[in-house]
Amino acid sequence: MDENNDPTWFTSRDLFAVHIGCHVTRMEEGYAEAQTELEDYHKNGLGMAHGGVIYSLADLAFAAASNSRRETAVSINATISYMRPITSGLIRAEARETASNRKLATYIVTVYDQQDTACAVFQGTVFKKGANAS
Amino acid sequence: MDENNDPTWFTSRDLFAVHIGCHVTRMEEGYAEAQTELEDYHKNGLGMAHGGVIYSLADLAFAAASNSRRETAVSINATISYMRPITSGLIRAEARETASNRKLATYIVTVYDQQDTACAVFQGTVFKKGANAS
Amino acid sequence: MDENNDPTWFTSRDLFAVHIGCHVTRMEEGYAEAQTELEDYHKNGLGMAHGGVIYSLADLAFAAASNSRRETAVSINATISYMRPITSGLIRAEARETASNRKLATYIVTVYDQQDTACAVFQGTVFKKGANAS
Amino acid sequence: MDENNDPTWFTSRDLFAVHIGCHVTRMEEGYAEAQTELEDYHKNGLGMAHGGVIYSLADLAFAAASNSRRETAVSINATISYMRPITSGLIRAEARETASNRKLATYIVTVYDQQDTACAVFQGTVFKKGANAS
Repeated sequence: MDENNDPTWFTSRDLFAVHIGCHVTRMEEGYAEAQTELEDYHKNGLGMAHGGVIYSLADLAFAAASNSRRETAVSINATISYMRPITSGLIRAEARETASNRKLATYIVTVYDQQDTACAVFQGTVFKKGANAS
Repeated sequence: MDENNDPTWFTSRDLFAVHIGCHVTRMEEGYAEAQTELEDYHKNGLGMAHGGVIYSLADLAFAAASNSRRETAVSINATISYMRPITSGLIRAEARETASNRKLATYIVTVYDQQDTACAVFQGTVFKKGANAS
Repeated sequence: MDENNDPTWFTSRDLFAVHIGCHVTRMEEGYAEAQTELEDYHKNGLGMAHGGVIYSLADLAFAAASNSRRETAVSINATISYMRPITSGLIRAEARETASNRKLATYIVTVYDQQDTACAVFQGTVFKKGANAS
Repeated sequence: MDENNDPTWFTSRDLFAVHIGCHVTRMEEGYAEAQTELEDYHKNGLGMAHGGVIYSLADLAFAAASNSRRETAVSINATISYMRPITSGLIRAEARETASNRKLATYIVTVYDQQDTACAVFQGTVFKKGANAS
């Protein structure tokens, strides 16, 4: 089995993702999906999903998508726009590679609430550190 | 004729777009395309399309798309990632609305070179100032 | 006592900040500081502070600074650049208001490691929802 | 004379900056300033300085600051927040290095109107391509 495309494996080595209840659910070349079920500890002072949770879920999908090609890629920056608050249910992030060169790649990640409404948009860039040994 | 969807009209009132040879070529609800032909005065010190040109072309498509719905929308911020240099030919930017609420909307704009390779990715957010009088 | 400037109060109502061990340590008009001690559960698959932790700490300082003026301000977007990995010790984020208007304000947040080296730079914008009732 | 710190030299090789009337006015290690006088051709359809002009002026200061150390640095991405419209007078952008590592550096650029009010905030990252031959 190809562990690089096993989402369970990808989540399990990411201790922060585990701590905040986010997990990768799909992982293909240049694409990944991550999900979390909104819990009380995910909320900010206004009772909505915390920006840090939405960012971290998007970042997890981005990390999975950008490491889907057997090379180590490290995030160098990211931008997120919050369009709608999320107050309950399943939150889902989908990351897709949008442009790349030899050293860099940019991904767009859209975060959806349980009604599949786009609630946040994330754009991240990775620096490719060379092919994995694995 | 609906002047809000007439790309010629949209470009002509934008003096900076005219000055730098960028024009809107399509304009639909939540979508727009803008183009420019790379000229010497578009280049930076390295002989490539200047970041400011690529940004301004993306920004023009973004402005056209975000003003396609008969309400005035002003840009509040934008992020651009440059993935590949462009050294000649036609440059094309396509803007699509990705998420929105009552007051804000976020657009993704992809900038292509003449070979239709994605060379830059732009994410912009507008603040909606209310319906147009027109 | 002015609870709006009590950092303990600000952190305690933010359940996600509590869950990930981040807390506000200073809060003044247009300024705030937040800190966390790096724990194993903060780490990514490479053994470094997770991007989501660094982002969430910066976001907490940003939220505290932008809510320091007795008006509710909600984050509409943010950008973060990661410059250096953090592998141990105290992490500290300082947020300062850089520009504002009646409806929007932009903050720059710098994240430092224990040696006071700038490791990440965050830029965030809030939408002001009007003065607090309190 | 050290041409790397001669702002006139830096502007003159940037054909787009010349075309849009922007020029570098100061250039030191990790710092630069650029200016333009607002002209009619800088305006958008609302009669204000075009986002593309403000971005391009900030980008010029950023390019000058990031190339102030005798190594070639290329912009890989940038974010800009527009806080206040500018309708007349001198526009000034100041770029300062905020964080860096061996390969990357991040700059904050603040754009001021003639009254020295901060009107836009820009954050840009460069990739360092190695020391200049010059």
